[in-house]
Amino acid sequence: MPTSTSHSSKLASHLPTWMQHYHRDWLTGDITASLIVALLLIPQGLAYAQLAGLPPMAGLYASIGPLLVYGFFGSSMTQSVGPMAITSAMTAAALAPLAAAGSTQYLILAATLTLLSGLMLTLFGAFKLGGITRILSLPVIQGFSAGTALLIALGQTGSLLGTSWRGDTLLTLAINLPSALHHLQLANVLFGLIGLTLMWLAATPASQLLVKLGMSDKAAQLAGKILPLLVMIILGILLAGFDSAHRIKTLGQLPAAHFASSELKGIGTLDLSSLQSLLLPALLIGLAGFLQSITVAQSIAAASHQSIDANRELLALGNCNLAAALVGGMPVSGGFSRTVVNTNAGAQTPLAGMLSALWIVLALWLLLPLLAFLPQALLAATIILAVSRMISVEQLRLAWQFDPRDGLAWLMTFSGVLLLGPMLGIALGVGIAIALYLWRSQQPHVAVIGRVPNTEHYRNVLRHRVDTTLGILAVRVDENLYFANIANVLVQINAQLANYPESRQLLLVLSAVNSIDYSAVNALKDWKKTLSEQGITLHLAEVKGPVLDTLRHGDLLDQLAHAPFISTYAAMQTLCPPELDYSI
Amino acid sequence: MPTSTSHSSKLASHLPTWMQHYHRDWLTGDITASLIVALLLIPQGLAYAQLAGLPPMAGLYASIGPLLVYGFFGSSMTQSVGPMAITSAMTAAALAPLAAAGSTQYLILAATLTLLSGLMLTLFGAFKLGGITRILSLPVIQGFSAGTALLIALGQTGSLLGTSWRGDTLLTLAINLPSALHHLQLANVLFGLIGLTLMWLAATPASQLLVKLGMSDKAAQLAGKILPLLVMIILGILLAGFDSAHRIKTLGQLPAAHFASSELKGIGTLDLSSLQSLLLPALLIGLAGFLQSITVAQSIAAASHQSIDANRELLALGNCNLAAALVGGMPVSGGFSRTVVNTNAGAQTPLAGMLSALWIVLALWLLLPLLAFLPQALLAATIILAVSRMISVEQLRLAWQFDPRDGLAWLMTFSGVLLLGPMLGIALGVGIAIALYLWRSQQPHVAVIGRVPNTEHYRNVLRHRVDTTLGILAVRVDENLYFANIANVLVQINAQLANYPESRQLLLVLSAVNSIDYSAVNALKDWKKTLSEQGITLHLAEVKGPVLDTLRHGDLLDQLAHAPFISTYAAMQTLCPPELDYSI
Repeated sequence: MPTSTSHSSKLASHLPTWMQHYHRDWLTGDITASLIVALLLIPQGLAYAQLAGLPPMAGLYASIGPLLVYGFFGSSMTQSVGPMAITSAMTAAALAPLAAAGSTQYLILAATLTLLSGLMLTLFGAFKLGGITRILSLPVIQGFSAGTALLIALGQTGSLLGTSWRGDTLLTLAINLPSALHHLQLANVLFGLIGLTLMWLAATPASQLLVKLGMSDKAAQLAGKILPLLVMIILGILLAGFDSAHRIKTLGQLPAAHFASSELKGIGTLDLSSLQSLLLPALLIGLAGFLQSITVAQSIAAASHQSIDANRELLALGNCNLAAALVGGMPVSGGFSRTVVNTNAGAQTPLAGMLSALWIVLALWLLLPLLAFLPQALLAATIILAVSRMISVEQLRLAWQFDPRDGLAWLMTFSGVLLLGPMLGIALGVGIAIALYLWRSQQPHVAVIGRVPNTEHYRNVLRHRVDTTLGILAVRVDENLYFANIANVLVQINAQLANYPESRQLLLVLSAVNSIDYSAVNALKDWKKTLSEQGITLHLAEVKGPVLDTLRHGDLLDQLAHAPFISTYAAMQTLCPPELDYSI
Repeated sequence: MPTSTSHSSKLASHLPTWMQHYHRDWLTGDITASLIVALLLIPQGLAYAQLAGLPPMAGLYASIGPLLVYGFFGSSMTQSVGPMAITSAMTAAALAPLAAAGSTQYLILAATLTLLSGLMLTLFGAFKLGGITRILSLPVIQGFSAGTALLIALGQTGSLLGTSWRGDTLLTLAINLPSALHHLQLANVLFGLIGLTLMWLAATPASQLLVKLGMSDKAAQLAGKILPLLVMIILGILLAGFDSAHRIKTLGQLPAAHFASSELKGIGTLDLSSLQSLLLPALLIGLAGFLQSITVAQSIAAASHQSIDANRELLALGNCNLAAALVGGMPVSGGFSRTVVNTNAGAQTPLAGMLSALWIVLALWLLLPLLAFLPQALLAATIILAVSRMISVEQLRLAWQFDPRDGLAWLMTFSGVLLLGPMLGIALGVGIAIALYLWRSQQPHVAVIGRVPNTEHYRNVLRHRVDTTLGILAVRVDENLYFANIANVLVQINAQLANYPESRQLLLVLSAVNSIDYSAVNALKDWKKTLSEQGITLHLAEVKGPVLDTLRHGDLLDQLAHAPFISTYAAMQTLCPPELDYSI
């Protein structure tokens, strides 16, 4: 390893690897990708900020800081960090009970929420808690995403059709529906529906057509992302020319600057109870954002043989949110669709993201007056198209088909989000995932086993033709033994003892028991006493190394008539010598 | 089976079995036990009612109803139901934030809490949720009991020494300590300490002495329960004679009647938010009470070969609490020490309990004026002696020695109770027990296995001298595969693949995997793709019946190059035929 002593080299060695070894060949790809992603980010940032109940500009500023920061801390080469639909919807749900959307108090709370979320993620990263998202199971993640996407899409229908239909949950949306229907106007409805249809046609169908016409898959996919933007711009220009009565609402003149740092100063004005009520939302938004980021990063990395460090990603996303708190004041995360665009457009390193940030700053400087002409309805259409791919009934079908309990978890999380909102929905999901796992392990499989004739193997008497030995009952327990299932296990074994009343020796075969806890050991000891009173002797066989190590710390082993047997066969040989064997 | 058509027989057939077949021989035992238990219940009822923040008489009335009801619904022959220390302390903790102790509002809330708790338990019983207490692990139960007992004992020290030292948690107790110390008076302190010492001597040491003097164990144990009462009565009489200045506080004149049914009428005056805030406490008190009852019933039943039906006990305790809500207005549960007394005093059937209720009614009628002379300090001593046996550091040592994680759960629940009170403490305990189990299963044991020479057995290469085959890596996973651990499992297997870089075939041996969930299967499928890209083929062996059934619902099996192998040996035979075997 070369030792460098110059100051600049020392500094350089602290830079990310990709910066130290940047290769000239990567530049074209990074620049192209940066332009396309910036093009995507501008309408998305504006739209997601509004979804979060914030001024549109907040979304653009929140895009700049994180993109610059991610380049220094992230481990994914092409992850695109910025405002995203789910975290934006969760922000709105978290802040709605605390302040009126758009009020100064709301802005301060949003910046504080982002700051707290960033701090938590950074802290989790420092403590190497990258595995935190594992408390969510796949059906729960899918149900959560589908439910939140449906809520967002429904909520955006209001903006799409030019009414003020709003609501955090299915219930509030339903309550507000009649008045929203009352305010529908034909021009708005037509413009919204036509805009959505054209943008949708310009997305998937157009790219499929381009593939048929001979374009490469990647290029066609990119075109499918850019074309809807073109539709939006063209419709905006048409509107500016023909809608002199301003019946279709546009974004309107935006303020030149929107720095959340000034809002952050307002933290001092927040009382302790407001801060406290932001803690759980900050955690859940951080969790949801990180879940999305790590999933995106891993799926992209798997395709391109990079490796992703979950703890480093956690730190990176935490720092991105700290940056977002300072400049934009809304939570950010990695986004699937934008990251795919970035990758397919040729991005090689995070330089692409950093350049995107530069283009957005330039756009803010040069194009700000033009943004005023963007129709609100088409920003809503952007969101609807982005989230609609997350609503998949096929996922539910697959999960249900695999195991109805997994399907139930999907459905319960999905319904939880629709009825309680995304914030409580994800909290509910964590609970459901854990409850489902505990439920599974509470109903253990317990099998009486017998000897496969002329072998040393023992199998379930119900599934195989095997020989059992009169007076000795061999029972295999197929589950870890712990507080929540030990009572069920003992009930099942007692039932088997009642089926074989002549048993005087009970052999517990623990080949499938990977762990045993203190509660289970104590229950076994009590049960052993009861067995003794009934004249039945307890033996153990095939105890795994780690379980044996655990048992050595208690006194159950000392109370056994015989040390645990190495195998069922060995136990049978000892307990019932072959010459005495009178198999039935 | 004889068919009976007469009306009285029909009615009788609805009575509990013990009533239908009551045997004359049982009567002596039942009557003796009933007298002794009534004698115990009177001071305990008075003391626990005060612990719950209620008028002393509430405890006596709350003893009568449940004893009569349990006889009809319970499955334990000698369970003694009534006010108990832990549920009383939880009642106080639940109601303290809602109303001032002793106020009418407080009485109404207590009766309502009891009613809700009874309804919940009855409902759980109807839905056969007798297994509900299994969500608590042994260390959590022990830590909860020890912490609550310590809190109760500390809190009662105030009454014992004649000050008004009070507090729900260690913190409030500490804050109130200086002022309590300031109000200490020598006469009170001496009387309290002497009373406690004498009552303690009259308990365990006296009964040990009696055994040495030749008394039977059971009789001595009973004497150890009755003698402290005698001490209390004698001290009360002495006090009445000599303390003319009334420096030592006595119970004072009690009202003749205290029926909670009149308070229950006040439910109508409660607002919805008060009712809502009682729901969780009612659930937790019901849970703690049932936990205590079922533990007592089962330990007594095991010794006397009765069988206890958890669901029937749940129904019985639910009905007992409904009765308590009507007549006493405070929650009841089975009590360990009283049940042991009842059993040892010769109780044969629940008739003993029903007779106890009768004696208490008689005592209320005849002896009420005499109760006025009972010193408050000695009621506190009764409580302190009752709960002190639950504070055991030995339990912590045993749990810690078995597994530091179990010790940690004990300690965390114990500290949780001390810092947050018994109410939040038990809720915390449920969380800790579950988190501990998940933590265990998150760190799975993954072993590379090799063939024990000249056998068909495969064992861990690190623990045994075995042969491995170049190009084929056999890995055994010793844990169920599910959302929270699948990522860790794959990381470990990838690390082993890096250790054996020449591997082209990977054999996963699933002999210790008892279940696999949807998240895990999907992660395996993604991982299989990554392996394929690296030129590694995945195989499965020793998949258990139930796991195989689950896997058939997904498409993982279809994607495998070979159907799962019946054994590791069979897999090795197929993947590397003996003639090609070049074992290293």
